[in-house]
Amino acid sequence: GHLHNSEAFNYGVETWEAYKRGGLSKDLVEEQKKVQEADLLIFQFPLFWFSMPAILKGWMDRVLVQGFAYDLSKAYDGGLLQDKLSLFSFTTGGSKEKYAIRGDIRYLLWPMQHGIMHFCGVKVLEPHISYAPENVSEDKRKEMLTAWTQRLKTLWKEEPIDCSPEWYFK
Amino acid sequence: GHLHNSEAFNYGVETWEAYKRGGLSKDLVEEQKKVQEADLLIFQFPLFWFSMPAILKGWMDRVLVQGFAYDLSKAYDGGLLQDKLSLFSFTTGGSKEKYAIRGDIRYLLWPMQHGIMHFCGVKVLEPHISYAPENVSEDKRKEMLTAWTQRLKTLWKEEPIDCSPEWYFK
Repeated sequence: GHLHNSEAFNYGVETWEAYKRGGLSKDLVEEQKKVQEADLLIFQFPLFWFSMPAILKGWMDRVLVQGFAYDLSKAYDGGLLQDKLSLFSFTTGGSKEKYAIRGDIRYLLWPMQHGIMHFCGVKVLEPHISYAPENVSEDKRKEMLTAWTQRLKTLWKEEPIDCSPEWYFK
Repeated sequence: GHLHNSEAFNYGVETWEAYKRGGLSKDLVEEQKKVQEADLLIFQFPLFWFSMPAILKGWMDRVLVQGFAYDLSKAYDGGLLQDKLSLFSFTTGGSKEKYAIRGDIRYLLWPMQHGIMHFCGVKVLEPHISYAPENVSEDKRKEMLTAWTQRLKTLWKEEPIDCSPEWYFK
């Protein structure tokens, strides 16, 4: 559609304005509808470079626009996506031992859990991490699937983490 | 090109094998050549969701493949991109005061500086952060550009950060 300010293009302002006038592209509106209707958002991905693969980061960048997910002074506990839960479930390349050095796993969760979900007012459940499925036995891989299946059954009884710096960096 | 293992597709293995046989796509080979020839990598971007915009994350995901940037037991101080410097220079949406709460800025630098650059053996210079250029006066914006121009002049005399957990989480 037309630009709100064609003199000085600002991606954040343009998506915000487009959201308000219902001018976002169809795929984004559909994704936002899914988010709106969901009680729980599960992000399942292979960890790439201590973070989400670019395509999933692109989903965050494009879908969670101002006006929809947060707004001026509506962030963190005041974020617009209230009463929702999120869960980051991912596989790693390295072993659990490698990530245990220096607490890397919790450090790298900060931008995703705190910087994105918590910022939007979404509560965060304990992450679900499947370490190095490529390098373990078939039996171990089956155990991982069983563990995930089991967890899904009682997910609704879980309490969110407190998402404070202490959780990440204590 | 052909797949190394068409039974079980593994992105990491396929790019590693493609790198070794010279089978990566042309755009990646060109980017890798630039990295190889560079003494200093400057990543300039607007901070999106406590991280790089997806398109830049995609550059990391696609260009820094195993065999080129790191290898089995060749990571961190043994990473393959030795004798190079990197610098993350970015603009933020929020003010310096907002990011100062809880040390957010250094926490969010961990995955990029430590998890990517340090992992590949690239040394890291102090980040260059321009806070909220959208919300400051024209004079302030000019000051930001001047500060960056000044810094570039003496960049080669700078010492890298130690990239230890203390730098990020002390």
